[in-house]
Amino acid sequence: MTTVNTMRAISQDTLGGPEVLKEIEVERPAPRPNQVLVRVRAAGLNPTDWKHRATGGFLGEPPFVLGWDVSGVVETVGIGVATFKPGDEVFGMLPYPWGHGSHAEYVIAPVRALTHKPASIDHIQAGALPLVSLTAWQALVENAELRPGQRVLIHAAAGGVGHVAVQIAKARGAYVIGTASAGKHDFLRELGADEVIDYRETDFTEAVKDVDVVLDTLGGDTSVDSLRVLRPGGIVVSILPVGSDEFDKEAERLGVRALRMLVDADRAGMNAIADLVEKGELRPTIAGTFPLADAAEAHKLGDTGRTTGKLVLVVD
Amino acid sequence: MTTVNTMRAISQDTLGGPEVLKEIEVERPAPRPNQVLVRVRAAGLNPTDWKHRATGGFLGEPPFVLGWDVSGVVETVGIGVATFKPGDEVFGMLPYPWGHGSHAEYVIAPVRALTHKPASIDHIQAGALPLVSLTAWQALVENAELRPGQRVLIHAAAGGVGHVAVQIAKARGAYVIGTASAGKHDFLRELGADEVIDYRETDFTEAVKDVDVVLDTLGGDTSVDSLRVLRPGGIVVSILPVGSDEFDKEAERLGVRALRMLVDADRAGMNAIADLVEKGELRPTIAGTFPLADAAEAHKLGDTGRTTGKLVLVVD
Repeated sequence: MTTVNTMRAISQDTLGGPEVLKEIEVERPAPRPNQVLVRVRAAGLNPTDWKHRATGGFLGEPPFVLGWDVSGVVETVGIGVATFKPGDEVFGMLPYPWGHGSHAEYVIAPVRALTHKPASIDHIQAGALPLVSLTAWQALVENAELRPGQRVLIHAAAGGVGHVAVQIAKARGAYVIGTASAGKHDFLRELGADEVIDYRETDFTEAVKDVDVVLDTLGGDTSVDSLRVLRPGGIVVSILPVGSDEFDKEAERLGVRALRMLVDADRAGMNAIADLVEKGELRPTIAGTFPLADAAEAHKLGDTGRTTGKLVLVVD
Repeated sequence: MTTVNTMRAISQDTLGGPEVLKEIEVERPAPRPNQVLVRVRAAGLNPTDWKHRATGGFLGEPPFVLGWDVSGVVETVGIGVATFKPGDEVFGMLPYPWGHGSHAEYVIAPVRALTHKPASIDHIQAGALPLVSLTAWQALVENAELRPGQRVLIHAAAGGVGHVAVQIAKARGAYVIGTASAGKHDFLRELGADEVIDYRETDFTEAVKDVDVVLDTLGGDTSVDSLRVLRPGGIVVSILPVGSDEFDKEAERLGVRALRMLVDADRAGMNAIADLVEKGELRPTIAGTFPLADAAEAHKLGDTGRTTGKLVLVVD
């Protein structure tokens, strides 16, 4: 419990492993114009959290509070906010950079980052969706303009972004090929994948061809190799925003397209995601939940990269 | 002319009249992730500029650079920007607060605030549109959900927001009633207004009834009086985000809706505006243009409130 003007938050004073995370009590922030204060009910964890914890990334030097996913209840609204009122259930992804994140009891969010939480999912599911779903949506729909009948290859298709991307691609009417270790193939087929490839046994560049769109969640050699399975004019969208020049050069040589992107907060995308949820076409898989105070434990598990589905902090 | 790493900007060290504005040379900023640096070609002026110049508003204490409207050319892109590339012509409205504004040679903008400039308008027209069009769009379409055949009353319909709102409402198939002084009635009819009211001669609460949506650009007594011309369930959207409690209380008493909003940067809205422009359904009226160095002159003219249409700074 905290007093009325403070809140608990997971903060860090130094960069490092999960052990640098600690629960602190800080002043509860007030929303500025076109912002709302959200009482966090659940907040997903993502690789961007481990990376920022360890490197500072876009946030620079600590102290900062991590967390880009949020599902919760509007507590107060800033000047000019007409879209939401206190008590509304909302979910969304915070923009980069955002150093006072959602791994806390309350978080400030720009109203354009949020939309109404679908009634058909709970806060844990809603808190797991925003960053991975927006990433997949912006990669497949906004950037690649995926159309019905197109062939899409999704790397690490059982991962956080991957398992959501499979569902979004199927909802768009695409033919979906996913890579994953053999133990996750049943999971991928349940999500709707049409073909599954065991990347440990099979070189995907031999097994797949004539692909229209590749969603590259791995980077490195995978980015460049992915260009070789495209049909002429096809596109690889890498969700790792920086990498080698070879990606662009090889794409030009092959007559295909190579695009790097960074997911961006956006209500229009969140509305599209909420629509898919309401239609029953999109659900997150929850690998585990942790109370806010155990954020370091969640980071430890996330750091292993061995979970299937999403880790979520639950704030009571 | 400036050296390669600097730029000219209109800044102020103190709050006050137009005379506090001065041209300075500052370092050219670099875009952060999901931002672009735009070479400004034209930047509209809005009442929010005079207000912030005089009061600080959402920006607090100077120094700051004003300007929320921008039309220009992408110069460089930040990490993760897949939507735009250098050389793209873009336009949009910067978010609140934004203390390093568009009244400069270059401006940093979040990519989600921008969209591609329609080829059918020049930078002066594109630089005049964003803030007023987004205001009208968010008021009439997003918040009031204006439908074909509905009756809409637009106050100060010949003003910056008003003259754009008339066109947007007509494009939505609404029946449009506008208030303006008699000298501007021909202008309103050319824009498509179905009825015009001379607010100096006529009490609009006597002349109009059964209105579905009122767009209130004036505030004060007008906000409250506007509630009285609504049909049951109708809505007044005030674009002045703060005001008296009487607005809400009287709305509740009358069984109508009262909403206050503050315009917010948004690509989805900019896309809708660009579509209307491409269809020939939306054009700004330009009251005058000024070179960047004469920003103070533009503020002086804007402060009078006597212009019909938009003032725009042109950056060579």
